[in-house]
Amino acid sequence: MILVNGEPMQHISVLDRGLAYGDGVFRTLLLRAGNAVAWSLHYATLMADCARLKLPCPAEDLLQEDLSRIAAQAPDCVAKIIVTRGVGLRGYAPPAHPICVRIVSSSVLPCYPQAYLDDGIVARVCAMRLARQPALAGVKHLNRLENVLARSEWQDADIAEGLLLDTEDQVIGGCMSNLFIRQGKTLLTPALSHSGVAGVTRARLLARAPQLDLRVQVQVLTLPMLLAAEEVMLCNSVIGIWRVRQLGDTHWYGAQYTPALRTLLEQDID
Amino acid sequence: MILVNGEPMQHISVLDRGLAYGDGVFRTLLLRAGNAVAWSLHYATLMADCARLKLPCPAEDLLQEDLSRIAAQAPDCVAKIIVTRGVGLRGYAPPAHPICVRIVSSSVLPCYPQAYLDDGIVARVCAMRLARQPALAGVKHLNRLENVLARSEWQDADIAEGLLLDTEDQVIGGCMSNLFIRQGKTLLTPALSHSGVAGVTRARLLARAPQLDLRVQVQVLTLPMLLAAEEVMLCNSVIGIWRVRQLGDTHWYGAQYTPALRTLLEQDID
Repeated sequence: MILVNGEPMQHISVLDRGLAYGDGVFRTLLLRAGNAVAWSLHYATLMADCARLKLPCPAEDLLQEDLSRIAAQAPDCVAKIIVTRGVGLRGYAPPAHPICVRIVSSSVLPCYPQAYLDDGIVARVCAMRLARQPALAGVKHLNRLENVLARSEWQDADIAEGLLLDTEDQVIGGCMSNLFIRQGKTLLTPALSHSGVAGVTRARLLARAPQLDLRVQVQVLTLPMLLAAEEVMLCNSVIGIWRVRQLGDTHWYGAQYTPALRTLLEQDID
Repeated sequence: MILVNGEPMQHISVLDRGLAYGDGVFRTLLLRAGNAVAWSLHYATLMADCARLKLPCPAEDLLQEDLSRIAAQAPDCVAKIIVTRGVGLRGYAPPAHPICVRIVSSSVLPCYPQAYLDDGIVARVCAMRLARQPALAGVKHLNRLENVLARSEWQDADIAEGLLLDTEDQVIGGCMSNLFIRQGKTLLTPALSHSGVAGVTRARLLARAPQLDLRVQVQVLTLPMLLAAEEVMLCNSVIGIWRVRQLGDTHWYGAQYTPALRTLLEQDID
């Protein structure tokens, strides 16, 4: 099911600035038994991302109405919300009073192997480096060619995710996920002030990990730090959290904190 | 008039990767008396840009057919060609065999003040800095949020264009144009190996300026070099070439080479 501004519709205008310039933002979230997991945080993040691009954010009740119509058809699915700056005249200048377009759609839950949860995943380091752009860093905007090019580097189905470094050798995260590493009782995740997407699951883990007696720290991470970590984890709203068991020649054995962090995410879904 | 894959249509699928990720490229060109100005170079550039993103490029005769249908309705207009990777499943991985979408549309010729041609324009330096991304530099792709944010910095109608520097203080070009500066008999334009769009009019000027006994040079340019130049010019397929007469407190007097370069562009339209 796809709703465009609340109407069942499969199409948008060819003149939409979302297509022309990637002028918009999006969110991907889980519906579970009809409920949008971590909705408050998703909406707060959508608002913050819209503000970064000076986009008017759709009212929360409109989006909730859209989501409940989606949920009525597909109570367990992946929901995607796109907000664009709508139709504009030719040229980069944003309209003074944009009429934003909101698109809410559903897709089936992806079927990842059970082994990803039980044993962890194999990851690779992408050759593609992320550019450093503070004006857009952290925002889940529609300019995602870097992710597309990075994800196109491999076809091997045994590799579940690719890690992205930026042009200054800092580790930023996965193509579609945020990264955590653990050193003893400290959970570290990359600072996203120059590139990357600051996901909702990352925020939830940062907020909740202290319940497991873990300190959390947001800082610059390098590949040597990652390779030396005791545990490496990737997260997003759809996958939850996966442990990395192999990256190149480096192996990590035993699940350690990942299952407990997953339980935290699953128990506490507001 | 808008043609989507050759059919008159105003809409595209909400699931198009051009919208989801900006996964596509575009071109903007002039139709004059029904002819696409500098078509061969535009098509060659479209092919090269598609290759950079590993997108199949639409066949030349299909695009020419689209353009002649546009031209039949609007012999003098701005034509825009968009090529996207088409509809995909959720996720960044590009489909192995994408069914690309081509969109050809027209819009009216913009009405710039005659004074822009006679006297030159006033430009500003944007606060926004371009990120350095060699994988995408030069390509006219659909990830244009940097241009949108830069263009949103000013509303003053007397300022015709904003200049963009990158995060390493190199001058790259205008929000919607390429930049040339002249020092004696040498015409210099920024190297676009790390950011910016390598436009067709830039290529045409590089190829033709030697006819005016000007040497051309592609190199790193800085703002002090620009401010010290004898002549500063901006170009694209729609505006042709404009002289900058003022940038902040710096003024340039007298047209010098700009009219002759404009004549070169206008005479030789293949």
